Amino acid sequence: MKTPSLDLLIHELTHLPGIGEKTAQRLAYYILREGDRYSERLARALEGVRTQIRSCPQCFGYTEEVELCHLCSAPDRDSSVICIVEEAMDIEKVENAGVFRGRYHVLGGALAPLDGVGPEDLKIQPLMDRIELGLTGQAPQIRELILALDSDLEGDTTALYLSKLVAEKSVRLTRLAHGVPFGTDIDYIDRRTLGRALENRVEI
Amino acid sequence: MKTPSLDLLIHELTHLPGIGEKTAQRLAYYILREGDRYSERLARALEGVRTQIRSCPQCFGYTEEVELCHLCSAPDRDSSVICIVEEAMDIEKVENAGVFRGRYHVLGGALAPLDGVGPEDLKIQPLMDRIELGLTGQAPQIRELILALDSDLEGDTTALYLSKLVAEKSVRLTRLAHGVPFGTDIDYIDRRTLGRALENRVEI
Repeated sequence: MKTPSLDLLIHELTHLPGIGEKTAQRLAYYILREGDRYSERLARALEGVRTQIRSCPQCFGYTEEVELCHLCSAPDRDSSVICIVEEAMDIEKVENAGVFRGRYHVLGGALAPLDGVGPEDLKIQPLMDRIELGLTGQAPQIRELILALDSDLEGDTTALYLSKLVAEKSVRLTRLAHGVPFGTDIDYIDRRTLGRALENRVEI
Repeated sequence: MKTPSLDLLIHELTHLPGIGEKTAQRLAYYILREGDRYSERLARALEGVRTQIRSCPQCFGYTEEVELCHLCSAPDRDSSVICIVEEAMDIEKVENAGVFRGRYHVLGGALAPLDGVGPEDLKIQPLMDRIELGLTGQAPQIRELILALDSDLEGDTTALYLSKLVAEKSVRLTRLAHGVPFGTDIDYIDRRTLGRALENRVEI
């Protein structure tokens, strides 16, 4: 096809995660078919995100507030517990569970030495600073860090690293429980998860 | 989350075909993570498509040319054969097959009486005009129409409708052959396709 601007849109769309050449093509043609109004709305939404959203200087989640995000500034949340997540979007996942009422800290990824992601690439120092501020009384003291990291090699590596860093501080370090996900057939559960679910079995 | 501009981007992305709430969320967060440069490039690509691409006035495919598209204006293509497709993106599919060297005509969909899509919603009259122009000698005569429509109810309805319209004109009407797709196991072929493939078997 001799339509360079269409080719460019397809090319840009293939950068999105999980969007291959074929899907990008389908999306681009859909955008064309929908006409100017949709593509304008989409472009405006992209610009809105670009101009409105910033990183919260405390938890590094996304916010549109001028100062701290609404989760960091909410007076009715428990400042003594911080839930540590890899990505900003994980905050929403944890929030949706409706169980956690503390604060958050976004690392911005997980340690992956083989891919060249070291502690300095993550928001680990700012986390240590938050703990330190609490210990010196300049901020509410932090009693517990809950690690809500991905259950993979990088997540485990990060958890181990953080546990060593926090060892000498008087902060409790916990992580999400492993177990059987709701609505899952026992046949589909892997050996390790099932083993952990057995060990951690609960009285009915 | 109290991030209306992010929510808006997610909302706009869910309009895309095959993109549900979860995928839209993942895409939006990816766009945020990638930072300004990517979202600017994507917005620019959207604008490029909006300002550069128009419908070819003859075949209704997408083009960036001022007059006819490159397929309609190419002097080395056979103007006596028109391949009729439902959507503009189908042109690329047929072109990629590398077998067809005629012209195209995009209907802009297929007849779907139950969904309220009638002949007047498709580019059927312009197709008849093209045939008529050829018959009166004002344009190269059209000898054959190849229907490359989807193999579903709407495609078949459209094929039937076109065959009635073209019946009295001296134009050959053909459609794509049914048969076994390349690289497919015989077990996975449905009964009708296999029956057709047997009927239309070819000497080796």
